[in-house]
Amino acid sequence: MKNTKNKARILIDCADAKGLVYLVSKIFFQRGLNIDSNQEFVDKESGKFFMRTVVSGDFNANDLKMELGRVLPSHANLRLVIPKKKTIVLLVTKESHALGDILIRHSAGELDAEIKAVIGNHKTLEQLVVRFDIPFHYVSAQGVNRTEHEYEVMRKINSYDFDYIVLAKYMRILTEHFVSHYTQKIINIHHSFLPAFIGANPYKQAFERGVKIIGATAHFVTSDLDEGPIIAQNIIPVNHRFDWRDMQRAGRDVEKSVLSRALSLVLNDRVFIHGNKTIVF
Amino acid sequence: MKNTKNKARILIDCADAKGLVYLVSKIFFQRGLNIDSNQEFVDKESGKFFMRTVVSGDFNANDLKMELGRVLPSHANLRLVIPKKKTIVLLVTKESHALGDILIRHSAGELDAEIKAVIGNHKTLEQLVVRFDIPFHYVSAQGVNRTEHEYEVMRKINSYDFDYIVLAKYMRILTEHFVSHYTQKIINIHHSFLPAFIGANPYKQAFERGVKIIGATAHFVTSDLDEGPIIAQNIIPVNHRFDWRDMQRAGRDVEKSVLSRALSLVLNDRVFIHGNKTIVF
Amino acid sequence: MKNTKNKARILIDCADAKGLVYLVSKIFFQRGLNIDSNQEFVDKESGKFFMRTVVSGDFNANDLKMELGRVLPSHANLRLVIPKKKTIVLLVTKESHALGDILIRHSAGELDAEIKAVIGNHKTLEQLVVRFDIPFHYVSAQGVNRTEHEYEVMRKINSYDFDYIVLAKYMRILTEHFVSHYTQKIINIHHSFLPAFIGANPYKQAFERGVKIIGATAHFVTSDLDEGPIIAQNIIPVNHRFDWRDMQRAGRDVEKSVLSRALSLVLNDRVFIHGNKTIVF
Amino acid sequence: MKNTKNKARILIDCADAKGLVYLVSKIFFQRGLNIDSNQEFVDKESGKFFMRTVVSGDFNANDLKMELGRVLPSHANLRLVIPKKKTIVLLVTKESHALGDILIRHSAGELDAEIKAVIGNHKTLEQLVVRFDIPFHYVSAQGVNRTEHEYEVMRKINSYDFDYIVLAKYMRILTEHFVSHYTQKIINIHHSFLPAFIGANPYKQAFERGVKIIGATAHFVTSDLDEGPIIAQNIIPVNHRFDWRDMQRAGRDVEKSVLSRALSLVLNDRVFIHGNKTIVF
Repeated sequence: MKNTKNKARILIDCADAKGLVYLVSKIFFQRGLNIDSNQEFVDKESGKFFMRTVVSGDFNANDLKMELGRVLPSHANLRLVIPKKKTIVLLVTKESHALGDILIRHSAGELDAEIKAVIGNHKTLEQLVVRFDIPFHYVSAQGVNRTEHEYEVMRKINSYDFDYIVLAKYMRILTEHFVSHYTQKIINIHHSFLPAFIGANPYKQAFERGVKIIGATAHFVTSDLDEGPIIAQNIIPVNHRFDWRDMQRAGRDVEKSVLSRALSLVLNDRVFIHGNKTIVF
Repeated sequence: MKNTKNKARILIDCADAKGLVYLVSKIFFQRGLNIDSNQEFVDKESGKFFMRTVVSGDFNANDLKMELGRVLPSHANLRLVIPKKKTIVLLVTKESHALGDILIRHSAGELDAEIKAVIGNHKTLEQLVVRFDIPFHYVSAQGVNRTEHEYEVMRKINSYDFDYIVLAKYMRILTEHFVSHYTQKIINIHHSFLPAFIGANPYKQAFERGVKIIGATAHFVTSDLDEGPIIAQNIIPVNHRFDWRDMQRAGRDVEKSVLSRALSLVLNDRVFIHGNKTIVF
Repeated sequence: MKNTKNKARILIDCADAKGLVYLVSKIFFQRGLNIDSNQEFVDKESGKFFMRTVVSGDFNANDLKMELGRVLPSHANLRLVIPKKKTIVLLVTKESHALGDILIRHSAGELDAEIKAVIGNHKTLEQLVVRFDIPFHYVSAQGVNRTEHEYEVMRKINSYDFDYIVLAKYMRILTEHFVSHYTQKIINIHHSFLPAFIGANPYKQAFERGVKIIGATAHFVTSDLDEGPIIAQNIIPVNHRFDWRDMQRAGRDVEKSVLSRALSLVLNDRVFIHGNKTIVF
Repeated sequence: MKNTKNKARILIDCADAKGLVYLVSKIFFQRGLNIDSNQEFVDKESGKFFMRTVVSGDFNANDLKMELGRVLPSHANLRLVIPKKKTIVLLVTKESHALGDILIRHSAGELDAEIKAVIGNHKTLEQLVVRFDIPFHYVSAQGVNRTEHEYEVMRKINSYDFDYIVLAKYMRILTEHFVSHYTQKIINIHHSFLPAFIGANPYKQAFERGVKIIGATAHFVTSDLDEGPIIAQNIIPVNHRFDWRDMQRAGRDVEKSVLSRALSLVLNDRVFIHGNKTIVF
């Protein structure tokens, strides 16, 4: 494997300490690796250090990771990722805009992920998914309780090898059991500009409040409903001529673009989760 | 006064009814008035009609208003405004960005308002105001209770003839007594993207929540704190490199531009208050 | 047909004259029609009047149109449109983002148009189109000259009944013959923030200029390349870390959302063409 | 000076080479300096390396700079800046919005610069400047040719010690002589979204083109008129109801905020000039 040109994303988060950049970059230098890109950040309040470096050259991934681990403080998180397409499973309900945007990117080879399957609690989107030769699983919530339904959804999810679960307008509330089973693996698009308008029909709430701007928030899901680390947000202006359905329509365009942007950041290992926040390089 | 070319802004809000546009435009036509601009809106939910027309020509304002009143439904709100500079009183605390933007526009003749006075609960901004030859009144809140302080502020305000009170980062909570005394006359800039982060130090809240966007909201003040009709909103993107002071700095730029835009809309009689919302033409 | 509740969009553009709003609204009033929405605009420079009214009630479309025509100045443009799905033909090359967004909206029933066919000068997008059960026609430009190719494209287009031709990233230059044959019927998405960076590979141009913002422009096509009336524009911020391919990727997201917004405005008869500009209600 | 806690901004741009981050961070580590923030970027096309590090600790600035210089490639640009208020001279004509925004920030202590003087080719803004106890120099262009006028302006400028010249809506064209005399020292706000609408009255041009967005561009001035490296850009949406004066008004708000943002970036040594582009950390 000597002449192979490898590429790796090195992701470090750990307690801040003097010399971290020096110690890490020394290893890259001594191994003759190229630094394709490099970003660091120190969160002063918590005293945490974050670093994302893309290196290329001739290296053995395990050796490199071990060597890096030796110079880092104890309890450091160290990831060495060889870039390749990640895998995702999508959960949906009835709305097609967020799912559709991801399917189109996928079919154009622009997604940086392979879609393993789409799971819906309604059949509405089955035809759309099947058009793209992707498995669709209908898991009805009719006649079963929340626990039973979620158990069935998890069984479907777990039958796939996946890196992330994407909630592309999945309109069911997830239990703490579900969320804690897939820690830091669930990405959601929230139909609002968090922390505003938490709960049902945010567009009606927004309309009734007479807002002049509609937003959307993509975030990791934690057990606190709608309160996980924010990955990306954006907005669109509205005015009094918008009824709440118009606001919903405008909101959908923001939702899908924000979810796709967040997904792209996560799939490229550009996002660190830090407590209830994210560091995005 | 026959040959004079007058201009008037006609503002109507009333229960919707068939023929309103016809009945109103008929009056303008029969009087030979020019319609310089005209906008209408019907809020279907409440069945309310809003119309703002700018007419020019030869007319007697009282006659015209009376004639219009006769064709409108009962309980209609009808305003006929001859365009001229309105008057405002500003309330401030220590921060200069919102006040400064208004002072610069004022001194360039671009404000559509005459600033009658600035009242501060701190002396910090006195020098800035005086530089522009505008009266500054320092009403200290030291050693007096809220009611006494507000009484003094109201006494100062009431010594001026004014159309609107502008809270340009006035950091005192107003009592219901104050607010109800100046109904639909108080404009505030809220240091946040309402309805998010209500309360003290919103930038610290935003920072702790890890938001990717900072907003500001200009609104009329009602007795519900931070809950009055929204006039204008805008946002600015931020990221993890912003500490809460950076967010505050970024937020100030949005605050001042949103307040100035809202003020310009109000001063040009472009804003209808409709329940807890606004119609902005 | 007496008790039927009809709806019509009335679109008027003509020389401005006193009493137009009165004369038109009088007709609606006397016929007992409801005005669902109404917007007017007078372009003072050219002395042109624009009006878009949505009325509902019991009417005969031909009678109503004739009656309206009688009160308008000569040479007035008057359209009375009964709302229904319009029909479109799409022209594409290789990129799927703009087409894909339209296909997803179409399949969700959110497009306000029926897609009659997609015509490509490459086969790249055939599979995507066929997935949605929409006819795809491949008209190769290989081995034929521009005139011959365009003739073949026009033959395909003309075999369909259509309201608009949408260039969803069609990368061939159209001849004046083509453009003048479909006056005011062709909508294009320009890969740039017009009037900047006209011509080939605008993202490379933008990159080389070191811009901090990338834009896109949807416009009607006239014989002046990239110079037709602008319908909608938007932008996305970029920075020095974007190479030109990153800029292109970012640009695509703006392109597709701007094209879809422009299309929605046109399909809802909200756009007047006025010389080289648009009035958008 | 042993116990003093110093702070320095280290700015490096040079040919890219392996080990640069290692070699530089080694020096910081061995000297026991804290890295407060650190950003790097490699422009692959030109093979150039950019690094901005803020260090704090106990150091002698000259020694540190010399040591850093020894490990960098030849022809490297190396700056070591001890943070302190920079100094600026402003050139203005008649419009007050850009100047006013800077004056307000200055008077609030938020500018990171000391304003040495304002030079105007009209007297219009004298009163405003004098209100803030800042010297104003009126250099009339009446009755003298361009060279003579510019000579006089330069004489005034050169009588001050300054870091940057800020053109805050200075409406005179500068000669190549002037520009080359202050290389990389002149910051301009362009009344348009470059590269569009170069030349006189861009708002009239924008109006005539029927744009839906108005922009502004802050850039360094080079001998190519309006073609220097872009520092910051932003936009504001407009519509058909804006005449060109409305567009100008809207444009002014963008102009002043873009100029102030660019100025803040430059004053904090966050901007590298790289050919006709900027790297902004």
